[in-house]
Amino acid sequence: MMIVMKEGASEAEIAAVVKRVEAVGAHAHISQGELVTVIGAIGDREHVANLGLEGAPGVDHLVPILKPYKLASLEYRRGERTVVEVDGRKIGGDRFATIAGPCTVESREVMLDSARIVKDAGAQLLRGGAYKPRTSPYSFQGLGEAGLRLLAEAREETGLPIVTELMDVRDMEPVLEVADVVQLGARSMQNYTLLTEVGRAGVPVLLKRGLSATLEELLMAAEYVLKEGNPNVMLCERGIRTYEPSYRFTLDLMAVPVLRELTHLPIIVDPSHAAGRRSLVEPLSLAAAAAGADGVIVEVHPCPEEAVCDGPQALRAEQFADYLRKLEAAAELAGKTLAAV
Amino acid sequence: MMIVMKEGASEAEIAAVVKRVEAVGAHAHISQGELVTVIGAIGDREHVANLGLEGAPGVDHLVPILKPYKLASLEYRRGERTVVEVDGRKIGGDRFATIAGPCTVESREVMLDSARIVKDAGAQLLRGGAYKPRTSPYSFQGLGEAGLRLLAEAREETGLPIVTELMDVRDMEPVLEVADVVQLGARSMQNYTLLTEVGRAGVPVLLKRGLSATLEELLMAAEYVLKEGNPNVMLCERGIRTYEPSYRFTLDLMAVPVLRELTHLPIIVDPSHAAGRRSLVEPLSLAAAAAGADGVIVEVHPCPEEAVCDGPQALRAEQFADYLRKLEAAAELAGKTLAAV
Amino acid sequence: MMIVMKEGASEAEIAAVVKRVEAVGAHAHISQGELVTVIGAIGDREHVANLGLEGAPGVDHLVPILKPYKLASLEYRRGERTVVEVDGRKIGGDRFATIAGPCTVESREVMLDSARIVKDAGAQLLRGGAYKPRTSPYSFQGLGEAGLRLLAEAREETGLPIVTELMDVRDMEPVLEVADVVQLGARSMQNYTLLTEVGRAGVPVLLKRGLSATLEELLMAAEYVLKEGNPNVMLCERGIRTYEPSYRFTLDLMAVPVLRELTHLPIIVDPSHAAGRRSLVEPLSLAAAAAGADGVIVEVHPCPEEAVCDGPQALRAEQFADYLRKLEAAAELAGKTLAAV
Amino acid sequence: MMIVMKEGASEAEIAAVVKRVEAVGAHAHISQGELVTVIGAIGDREHVANLGLEGAPGVDHLVPILKPYKLASLEYRRGERTVVEVDGRKIGGDRFATIAGPCTVESREVMLDSARIVKDAGAQLLRGGAYKPRTSPYSFQGLGEAGLRLLAEAREETGLPIVTELMDVRDMEPVLEVADVVQLGARSMQNYTLLTEVGRAGVPVLLKRGLSATLEELLMAAEYVLKEGNPNVMLCERGIRTYEPSYRFTLDLMAVPVLRELTHLPIIVDPSHAAGRRSLVEPLSLAAAAAGADGVIVEVHPCPEEAVCDGPQALRAEQFADYLRKLEAAAELAGKTLAAV
Repeated sequence: MMIVMKEGASEAEIAAVVKRVEAVGAHAHISQGELVTVIGAIGDREHVANLGLEGAPGVDHLVPILKPYKLASLEYRRGERTVVEVDGRKIGGDRFATIAGPCTVESREVMLDSARIVKDAGAQLLRGGAYKPRTSPYSFQGLGEAGLRLLAEAREETGLPIVTELMDVRDMEPVLEVADVVQLGARSMQNYTLLTEVGRAGVPVLLKRGLSATLEELLMAAEYVLKEGNPNVMLCERGIRTYEPSYRFTLDLMAVPVLRELTHLPIIVDPSHAAGRRSLVEPLSLAAAAAGADGVIVEVHPCPEEAVCDGPQALRAEQFADYLRKLEAAAELAGKTLAAV
Repeated sequence: MMIVMKEGASEAEIAAVVKRVEAVGAHAHISQGELVTVIGAIGDREHVANLGLEGAPGVDHLVPILKPYKLASLEYRRGERTVVEVDGRKIGGDRFATIAGPCTVESREVMLDSARIVKDAGAQLLRGGAYKPRTSPYSFQGLGEAGLRLLAEAREETGLPIVTELMDVRDMEPVLEVADVVQLGARSMQNYTLLTEVGRAGVPVLLKRGLSATLEELLMAAEYVLKEGNPNVMLCERGIRTYEPSYRFTLDLMAVPVLRELTHLPIIVDPSHAAGRRSLVEPLSLAAAAAGADGVIVEVHPCPEEAVCDGPQALRAEQFADYLRKLEAAAELAGKTLAAV
Repeated sequence: MMIVMKEGASEAEIAAVVKRVEAVGAHAHISQGELVTVIGAIGDREHVANLGLEGAPGVDHLVPILKPYKLASLEYRRGERTVVEVDGRKIGGDRFATIAGPCTVESREVMLDSARIVKDAGAQLLRGGAYKPRTSPYSFQGLGEAGLRLLAEAREETGLPIVTELMDVRDMEPVLEVADVVQLGARSMQNYTLLTEVGRAGVPVLLKRGLSATLEELLMAAEYVLKEGNPNVMLCERGIRTYEPSYRFTLDLMAVPVLRELTHLPIIVDPSHAAGRRSLVEPLSLAAAAAGADGVIVEVHPCPEEAVCDGPQALRAEQFADYLRKLEAAAELAGKTLAAV
Repeated sequence: MMIVMKEGASEAEIAAVVKRVEAVGAHAHISQGELVTVIGAIGDREHVANLGLEGAPGVDHLVPILKPYKLASLEYRRGERTVVEVDGRKIGGDRFATIAGPCTVESREVMLDSARIVKDAGAQLLRGGAYKPRTSPYSFQGLGEAGLRLLAEAREETGLPIVTELMDVRDMEPVLEVADVVQLGARSMQNYTLLTEVGRAGVPVLLKRGLSATLEELLMAAEYVLKEGNPNVMLCERGIRTYEPSYRFTLDLMAVPVLRELTHLPIIVDPSHAAGRRSLVEPLSLAAAAAGADGVIVEVHPCPEEAVCDGPQALRAEQFADYLRKLEAAAELAGKTLAAV
């Protein structure tokens, strides 16, 4: 931590800061500039941060130097990238994975049809929500356990591993029976109860970025899972909130190369929810792959017009195989090959 | 819902949209402009929204007309404002309330000292966190149940009602034993499990705005609580995320008069967390009161320098009574008097 | 400037950075932490910044320590606040000023009526736009020089000093003949041509914050004016762009106390443009005054329903005197009295 | 324009709105819902907008239906895309163009070396700034006319057309003598003086998106140029301002496919300024091309370590040809071929 003193801070104020830094066992290193003095506090970040030196007499502001996450950092793994293996499918490193399926599990027929489309086109994992976080209490909230049973049936028929969302810690048991990958949605990115429990469960996690979460906060959320001994975390960029009114969310594709410099964890992109419209999903998917993403998660539906939820953004069955071929070419540009089964 | 067709949408495309609108029992009302046609879908908002007409052939975009919240709207109560009563203290309407206390419950001595400061200065409710949502898994996470016991002791001594945060649905029982008002933090604003359960419990709720939540989303979150039959919801503006790097969060004081036009629920402002620095708390509190807020929630600490958490933003004991006097004057400008006990 | 090296940066990389820092005449001060090394570059900020050390081998990131503005900083004036005097009216320090008038100069009658309303109610300066920056080329662009003549006439009749906008450097001469204060609008905040020219002209300037300008950028824009020897700069907060769709702009009232800590320049708030609606103008004005603003600039119109531009946000003549009385009370809370003539 | 009335608006209020709509020659079309009434105002958008009906008695809010830009819209050209031709190079339609060069013109040697690198690698146009908009008045402001002469020399030697920025309307003549494409920077996007003058001059324009400009505002700025009879406008996405602190700007690649649906104008992406770091430029460029951009504008420098300005983001000479080959492959994915000379 660097403590930047105000112009004209007195000797006594500087000495007082040094004393408080040293009181928590850190070393204070003084750097005297022409106008301002900077005190480097070398030691445990949390201890120094807890000193609450912001606003202390003579202190202008604090600048953290060390990253607050450890296990999630690229340095922690000395540059080696995490490859998450889900029932034989490898995600991360030089492998690119596609996760696809309907937004929500709505009926047996749609779920099984979707699973066949996903399987036949050659995607690697099947997605579908049994529990749906909805802004409105009057919207359809998902089929719940009945939806989980349909996902299990789809896995049995197609052999595709299942990605599904967990919202309530009390649903852990039934969700874990079915999910090969547990999705934590954007609204749950800082639900520390869920993060800790999926960390303890050891199940692979797809962790979506909160809609105004910084990359550092996303990595800190991952750290909650990693800290419990679960290394199988995939990060997911799904659009952030900006001032632009033309989009539902602004898909932040800069996050892809920047996260690759910060972390060893695989980076998945969800273009469907940001776009909200089918026509944008393909260009954004290709862009994500070309930017170096480790995979995408998209929605596909046998009949988008009749989808219970988010039909307008679902890819059509008949275009899906062609979409996957183009996606493969874009991933190759970034040096990746499709995740083999 | 208004469905705006593209320029040059064909008769067949218009007819198809009308057919789908009518299929869910809504009435389609066509308005033919010089360049574009607009179809008004009059009927159940959810049904029409679920049609997923975005991206349908010929459709340009959709414009919702009705507000998605009902119970939270000012119209629902025909303009009468909700007054939440907490152990005799009235919040809302023409009463202004101050909720104060330390950020976190850290020790018996600090908690009781803080309670006495709050009581002596004349504030109405006592705040203190036993469970703390922390960005870092390495930060202090609160005293938990031991903290709840200290809050109970502080209430017993001072008679002040307690405001404390609930983070995990599994802690409902112990928290409800102590809390006169349950706080749902910004990260939990869209935790539908918690919203529903505190709705069922009927306890007064202080619902903080998520850090990139729109006012509509905040009101929809309140709707989750109201829908369960719990009318005692207070909204809390605590700073939003913007591009400005000089602040921790940007306190959105426009929310105060705008929410007053949208809802009957009381509006509380938390200036401490956005500011992060003591020197900003007073001007922002006065501004909140002058803008028409129904109360503020602030941090005060007997010795901010030794606070475990957020000391730099805590008001000092010796300035607190003077702060309250100015606050009262500002609230009067907006036509409010202090909440009597 | 602090240069934060990557974890594991080599001795050679550190030495290379030190060498480049010293090559521009700065002193390099090395602070060796447990994980990372930080190099303090003590010397001319511009020289060090121009080194372009971001991305150099072993460099993680750079942290500027010194503020980039000098003349605008509170330290430069050793804490003494600038009081701008306009034809006898003092703005800044412990004086609060109200600038009012129609959005745009639209006709002789409206302009003179507005001026009388402003004068009679007791506001200090008269505003009105002859040149209007408009998002659409199809919107009314202002009366131009004819508008300037009407402003001159209004001043002659009422004695009120005139605040009016300059958009095009080629209009300097006619605008300066009429304007007592030249307004630079939000879109022109980084128009360096205009900043430099009004700096040279020495005329008082009302400098509006760009709609996504940081406070630092606003102060740097002021620095362009100050650097030319013109000390008469007033800063104006008028709403920033955020994700919230309920407002035209989000009035950033935190800017008021934060700017007071950074600069000696007076701070004016424009609540009308952010609000877009009359009903919000009064609560936001009171909040601005209570937060410590040095003045407000608001729109008032004899007949808002017939205004050419922004009528819905204009205060009505009949409410204006009452509004000013409340505003005076709010300014007093923050220790200010109305600017006397 | 749709005028949405409040719940419970009276017959008289509705009639008053209808009357005002009809008074400006528009037709009022009433749509009576269960809860609210919506009045469609069919006629000239500007006239209806100027009514200022926001805040009128009984009016809740207004919803514009027609897009405010005309000449820039895809519909105006009935879906045919504009191809801007610059000295034989075609930009737009199915052609992809690369504009490259140093950030600023700093010396004869660097300028000519850069031009040769750009030419040899096969890029189509040469960029370089003689006038530099700088946040700080203490930063290097560009070589001015001397810089323009060096650009002219580089063109003469390599035959590459020149893209350079215009900041001050008083520099029109010298800039137009040299520039094949005039760049209007992000800070000038709403400088209506410049937009109008380059519109009149008829020269091809590269119009950068302001850093918090909506796509609609960008298109309205283009409309200012188009309205003067100059059809040669290229739009440029260069990063927007968001809350994320890890980036200089957030490159908004969603703008690419969304703008393609809104306008016929070519869309260029500048990844260098948002990134600020060389390592991000390639992945972002590939992503831009894969998303369907019509070109990129990037910085390349013979010796980035010695660049006067923005060296850390400049591509290196030795990597530039390889970069262009990958870019070509990414553009092909989106159906484009390189702009031939």
